[in-house]
Amino acid sequence: MDASPFFQLPYWDALTGEERTLVEDNLRTLRFPKGALVLAGGDCLGLLLVTRGCLRAYLLSEEGREVTIFRVGPGECCVLSATCVMSQIHFETHMEAEEDTELLLLSSGVFRRLTEENVSIRCFLYEMAAERFSEVLWIMQQILFMGFDRRLALFLLEASRREGPRLRMTHEQMARDLGSAREVVTRMLRRFSQEGLVELGRGSVIVKDPEGLRRLAGE
Amino acid sequence: MDASPFFQLPYWDALTGEERTLVEDNLRTLRFPKGALVLAGGDCLGLLLVTRGCLRAYLLSEEGREVTIFRVGPGECCVLSATCVMSQIHFETHMEAEEDTELLLLSSGVFRRLTEENVSIRCFLYEMAAERFSEVLWIMQQILFMGFDRRLALFLLEASRREGPRLRMTHEQMARDLGSAREVVTRMLRRFSQEGLVELGRGSVIVKDPEGLRRLAGE
Repeated sequence: MDASPFFQLPYWDALTGEERTLVEDNLRTLRFPKGALVLAGGDCLGLLLVTRGCLRAYLLSEEGREVTIFRVGPGECCVLSATCVMSQIHFETHMEAEEDTELLLLSSGVFRRLTEENVSIRCFLYEMAAERFSEVLWIMQQILFMGFDRRLALFLLEASRREGPRLRMTHEQMARDLGSAREVVTRMLRRFSQEGLVELGRGSVIVKDPEGLRRLAGE
Repeated sequence: MDASPFFQLPYWDALTGEERTLVEDNLRTLRFPKGALVLAGGDCLGLLLVTRGCLRAYLLSEEGREVTIFRVGPGECCVLSATCVMSQIHFETHMEAEEDTELLLLSSGVFRRLTEENVSIRCFLYEMAAERFSEVLWIMQQILFMGFDRRLALFLLEASRREGPRLRMTHEQMARDLGSAREVVTRMLRRFSQEGLVELGRGSVIVKDPEGLRRLAGE
């Protein structure tokens, strides 16, 4: 199978010829229709690389509440579907196909063998994991400590009632109004934009889904 | 300076002679009295290795609320005091000396150089980071989703009112009573034990600090 999307990932040029063949011989293509569950918490499928569509990863509470933690789009890969390959790492995420999705899967067994043989692939694994974890922690900190998603949603709703959907203000100004840091505003707006709640322009934010913002704000 | 505690860490046997000298020439010993702030959120000191005492790492909310996320004891090291060495990783933790504490510090600059030159040290960095993040995420998930720390504290208080401070029951039984998983109970009890709230024995849990449990339970 054509493994070239994998060989374009960072560190994968460090594979030996034999290891490259191992990857090529062990890849599978999986297809999921929109809405299908791709990974249930605790599953360890292996290393995923999305070739078409999009996966949504989320955490699920005991009461069934979902929190979206990241998305995996075309050309991107995800190692949190292979946590069993990492000793000492326990993290359960769920993933669903947000659109009709096609992905390449390298099984946990083969992926584990590569990480054991080749320190570069091991480094790839932990670097990817650390980056994802860092993103997820940021989201959880915002929710847990600040309710910052709520606060920003409320702020945008109030401003759009005054000024209409197109808000002409910088992230810096919003941060000042909200008593927060510019970086926090920027990252949360980016997340809102991925969720379709707002559209980001130069020096402006356009409210696209006031109903969604109201739900988030608990209004 | 004697760098041997570093050379005993995983992956550090992959250093070249020149890199070992670089470490030896650039280590510093730092001493902090009990209660001193060792790292403020956003600081990037470098790679820490505790030789005596104990560091407590915590997150701080805007309102000043603290959540302890891990401790670093003698012989242990911490890479989250060197997040600037990791591209794409943003995570701010605070650390204080929980006792009089002595540590070895390898500055961010030298540590960065090692991670750039030597893929094994890079792997060490991300593996350590991923492990810490996984621990922290687990704690935050428990607090965010389940209030499981509160629920377990309440459960222990109620049981100790019935049976006295020594509770003869397995983690399995508690998990069943709480509608949770054994692993979740075990990890939370371990955390309670580190905080001095309980003492763990064979097939028993001894309540040591009912006042602390009541505070946690919000009673």
